[in-house]
This record gives sequence, structure tokens and C-alpha cells, in this order.
Amino acid sequence: MNMTNGPVLLTPGPLTTSARVKAAMQRDWGSRDPAFVRLGLRTFERVAQLAGAGPDHVCVPLQGSGTFAIEAMIGSLVAPHEKLLVLVNGAYGRRIVEIARRLARKVDTFEVPETGTHDVDDLARRLRGAEAPDVVAMVHCETTSGLLNPLESIATCVRNAGKRLLVDSMSGFGALPLDMAAMGIEAVAASSNKCLQGVPGVSFVVCSRDALEARAGAAPSLVLDLAGQARGFEVDGQWRFTPPTHVVAALAEALDELDEEGGPPARLARYRENCRILVEGFGELGMTPALDPALQAPVIVSFREPGEPWYAFEPFYAALEQRGFAIYAGKMRDVGTFRVGTIGAVDAAIMRAFVGEAAAVVTELKQKLKGGS
Amino acid sequence: MNMTNGPVLLTPGPLTTSARVKAAMQRDWGSRDPAFVRLGLRTFERVAQLAGAGPDHVCVPLQGSGTFAIEAMIGSLVAPHEKLLVLVNGAYGRRIVEIARRLARKVDTFEVPETGTHDVDDLARRLRGAEAPDVVAMVHCETTSGLLNPLESIATCVRNAGKRLLVDSMSGFGALPLDMAAMGIEAVAASSNKCLQGVPGVSFVVCSRDALEARAGAAPSLVLDLAGQARGFEVDGQWRFTPPTHVVAALAEALDELDEEGGPPARLARYRENCRILVEGFGELGMTPALDPALQAPVIVSFREPGEPWYAFEPFYAALEQRGFAIYAGKMRDVGTFRVGTIGAVDAAIMRAFVGEAAAVVTELKQKLKGGS
Repeated sequence: MNMTNGPVLLTPGPLTTSARVKAAMQRDWGSRDPAFVRLGLRTFERVAQLAGAGPDHVCVPLQGSGTFAIEAMIGSLVAPHEKLLVLVNGAYGRRIVEIARRLARKVDTFEVPETGTHDVDDLARRLRGAEAPDVVAMVHCETTSGLLNPLESIATCVRNAGKRLLVDSMSGFGALPLDMAAMGIEAVAASSNKCLQGVPGVSFVVCSRDALEARAGAAPSLVLDLAGQARGFEVDGQWRFTPPTHVVAALAEALDELDEEGGPPARLARYRENCRILVEGFGELGMTPALDPALQAPVIVSFREPGEPWYAFEPFYAALEQRGFAIYAGKMRDVGTFRVGTIGAVDAAIMRAFVGEAAAVVTELKQKLKGGS
Repeated sequence: MNMTNGPVLLTPGPLTTSARVKAAMQRDWGSRDPAFVRLGLRTFERVAQLAGAGPDHVCVPLQGSGTFAIEAMIGSLVAPHEKLLVLVNGAYGRRIVEIARRLARKVDTFEVPETGTHDVDDLARRLRGAEAPDVVAMVHCETTSGLLNPLESIATCVRNAGKRLLVDSMSGFGALPLDMAAMGIEAVAASSNKCLQGVPGVSFVVCSRDALEARAGAAPSLVLDLAGQARGFEVDGQWRFTPPTHVVAALAEALDELDEEGGPPARLARYRENCRILVEGFGELGMTPALDPALQAPVIVSFREPGEPWYAFEPFYAALEQRGFAIYAGKMRDVGTFRVGTIGAVDAAIMRAFVGEAAAVVTELKQKLKGGS
């Protein structure tokens, strides 16, 4: 097997983690051993704190990727008789709709273009009347485009209407501001391998214990039943089913690192600087983001694909990877894009090096075209 | 964080893995990077070969623990109108029943005591007639007790009745003989962290592509829909949702190790020797297995709890862990047991050392009792 370190991952996650986080996976833990139980309890308590959890909130860990946590959140917190409204402006919003349909939930959508956000007055109108939904679900940062949805104003609107709010904060958790208690948010789902800078394999839902218990038994699944998982975890700190022990140990180490960096504000500042260097540098190469800068989260940037003959995604990707950097394919519906992540164990020096390599690649590809090869 | 190596895990998994398997987690992989796609395709092809897959079988990987794969197998391969019969002689058989009920499947059970196996003639009778089930599910090795169910004779019986067979081979896959094509088995679910000696976080179902496609859309879940997962994986080798990249890389390395050891027969021989040393050594300490030796799989041994005043599980566990070995609590319903696993990166020398330490612990605990402390 190739044991080289591989390229720097400028992706929405799995991303480049520190050597220290990976080193935390060099021990085998017994999943029912008291030492692992303590490690897990402490880790997910810290995750709850990062979410700004209130006394009624509990952090429920789950094996699998972030989408597993989203499905568990919808299945466990929206009862079959309740109505769900999903705010959609990208693929991750559409995925929540798809999940709700598969779980046979009553679901409606409020969809706007991928380059825009939802009008809060319009939302307020949709939350009034006898036909109004009981629950609203939204995506915090839409990785499809890199767009930051206005969590705080939407949360205020939903709370003022007396409705409940479920948030997919997958790609922002650990960096973007989040205060569940103050914002009155019922549940937030996220995972270990985005802004928390752990490795993939564990996800979690921080949610209201009362809301969970009130719908106990609603989940049409054993393994994705958050109420069952929460009960097991709260009784003795043990997972109902084998946890990804090494991944949890890596997350514990990643949380230490986050603390030492100065917490989410310091991490966000680093990501902002990464994003600034990237957008400026690519701007000089003639490549521009698909989003209005005011809507851009410093997590991942969607660049419009250059409409020039030297550019095609595969050779651009391959040439960048050759030089040590992996970027990401685009996902926006109406505009051709490629994406570059600005999160992970990546700093300004690395972003500058990346911009330099990208410039060289553009030159190289243009010359190749001229040379006819 | 404590970075010591921790105790040797004599458990049913997560278990002790080799330094080499853990070292394979020292690289970050881009989940959509061609190098990772190739690694994954090759890895799960090899898993299918280990299952004795036929040309109609496909290996579908899944994020999460083994139980996630079991739920995905039941939800994706048993349609709502079909009848499922579950063979039960332990907690893992009962868990399949619980899953089937949560998924609103029509489920019946054929339950026998935890120390016995199912009479094949009795099973044949239950598979006849208009009310007979369409599908049978069974557990290959019941980790509850350590019992090896007679897979081959049950498979023959089910096949002769023209019915379909789904197998939970969690704790035996990679060591116990398995030949899906020859045995006519429709699906087998297992995970990375048992006899394959990888780390926990990925599971898989090797199953009939035709059977899967015939029930496409049956799964009441998006993330646990094997047909959807298989399609995504077969199109371009990519997972629908973020894979646990480090865990997959560790599995790839573990498969290399399995090959180098001499494949499943050599691994089984090592486990048999581990088991022999354990049972003999504990026999000399007056501790006997709960099962008839003919039913014992060399995977995990349930010992009857000594009915003597020196023994209680917690101090016995703690004293053994102090000396570098983690055992496992018992799970049998009618008899008090503790369990000791014989699988993982553990050989005869380690088992002998363990038996020696256990002897010292027994002496120590007896002396403590005498001393009144």
C-alpha cells in the first residue's frame, strides 16, 4: 500500500488533519472498557458545549457519516403526524427532503436559488395558519455552493412563530458561531471530520432531551433511533452498537487542538484568512466565486469554471494533485463550478503555496494548448 | 490524552490490531480522490472473494458498525409483503427480530436455548406450506455464548425448501469457512473489526445483486438502502456519503495481512490454538466453558462465573486489566458468564501469558478474601 502522506485536502471533508490527531489512532480501545467510556462521555460533553447547548440539550453520538446523523435527526424528532418544512438552496437541503420522504414524513419545501437565501418575512408567513408546519429544517452552511445561511435570523423567525428548528450544521460546526440555547434551536446535526478537524466515521446530534423523549419510538429504525442511543449512552456511557473507537479517540484529540487554537472564534479567523488568500489569489488568475461575497462562508468556495479552452476539470484536478493539492468537483445546479475547501489543518502559508501552484498549473495548461499537445 | 498502548483486548471486537494496521491510518485520503476510489474498489472486491461470492453477488460497504449492516440487509432484502423467519439462540438472533419489527417487517422466530442449535428437520417442516416464510435469517457465530451455528446444514435445508437465506456472520467472517456461491446464500453481513482484524467503523453486506434490485426502494431509509449504495459504488467506486477513509485504509492493510498469514484457514488455525490454550489453562483454574465443546467457535469463550466468594466480575476484570488484558462481560440469559475473546492480533504466546496472569489474579483474589481485605 502507498504510505506516502498524499495531497493536502482542500475539500469539504474528509480533510487534512494534524499528525497529532492521526497519532491518537495508534491505540486500540475496548469499546466497553471504563477508560474508553470516560473518553467518550467527556468528548461528547465538549461537543455539546461547542453547540451552546442548554440544560435540556443532550449530545447523541452516532456511527457513520453526517448524513446518518441527519436521517437519525429527522426520523427521531419529526413524528409521522407532524409536518416538516425544509428550507432548500442547495443539494444538502434537497437531501433532507429526500430523507424525509423515504421516512414517510409529511414534508414541504421552501426553495430559493442556490445563490440566494430565504426571505425571512416570507418564511414568517409560511409559518402562520392551521396548515403551517410543526418543524422547520435548514442547512447552516450549504457546501453545494459554500453559502452561509442566516441561522440567527431564521431561528428567531421560527421561534417567534412557536415552531421548532432542526439544523444541519455539518460543514460549519466548530467554527461558525452557534448558540443553541440562546437561539432556541431544538437540534443540530454535525460530524467529526469538518471544522472539528477529526477523521470521518462519527457524527452526532445535539438535541432537546424533552423533544426526543416525546417522540420516543417514532424512528423507523433501530440503529438510527436517537432516543434509544441517548438512553444507552446516558445510563453507562456505552454505545448500543460498536463505536468507531479510533475515530472517537481522534476526535478527542481534535477537541484538545481546537481548545489550544483558541476555540471556534480563532479557528474561524484562520479559515477567513485562508479564504481571503484563496479568493484574492484565484481572482488574479481570472477565476471568480459563484457567490456574492456577503453570502460566502469561509469553509468552501465554489469558483465558476473558466469558459476558456485550456480548462477542463479532470486535467486541472490532476495537475494540482501532482503538485500536492486535492480540490473538489462542483455541485451547483445552474452554473459550472469547481470547489476549493479552506478548512482543516491548513494555514495561510499552505494556502499561499496552493495559489502559487495553481498559477503554475494555469500557465502550464495554457502552454500545452498553444503547443497543441 | 493517555497515549499508552492500553491492554490487549480479549474481546469480540473492537480487538487488538497490529501496529501495521494502525499505521495505515496515518494518511488522510480524499474520499473522491481516484487513489481512494481504487483502494476502496479493490478492498471490497477482496471482501467479496473471502465470502466465496458468486458472479451474482456484490459487496456493498456501509459506514457504521455491524448492526448497521444487519439493519440495511433486512430493510433492503426483505420486502414489506415478505415473511421473515429468524433462527434465534442468543442476543444477536433476538436483535435481528427487533430490527425486523422496527422496520415493520412480517417476522416470526424459531427460538431454541442459548446452549443448543436448531434441529434441521424441524426447520425443514417450518419451511413447508402456504404459511411458510420467504426468507430465513440466522447468526453464524453467536457471540452471546460463542456458539457456532451449523451454517452449511441450515443453508442446505433452506435452499432445498426453495427459500432465501440471510446470514449475520459478524464475528466469524474472515476465519470461519464461508462459501456463499456453493452454499446458495443470498446475503452475508459482517464488519471490519472482527476476524478481519481491521478497526471498527465500516461494515458490509455481500449479497445477490438480483435480489437487491428486485426489492429496490423497499428500504425505509436513505442511508441504509443497500440498493442505492450499491449503485453509487458500482458506477464510479464512490460512496454516496462520506466514507470512514482511515478505517477503510486500515481494512485494506488488514486484508494484506490476512493474505500473508495464509488466508482464513491459517487464521482459523491460530484462533483454534488460542482457544485451546485458553480453555485448557482456565480449566486448570477451575473455570469451565458454558457450551459443549462441539458447539464452541474459536472466536470467544463464555466461561461460567465461578460460584465462589473470591469471584465478582468487576474486581476480576480490573485485576486482569491492571496486568494488561481486557476481557468481556457475559451476555447469556440463563447462566452467569464472563467472556474471553480469542481473535485479533493475538497469538499462542500472548494467550499463555494471559492464562499465567489470570492464575496470578485468582490466587491474589483468594488471598485477599482470606486476609479479609
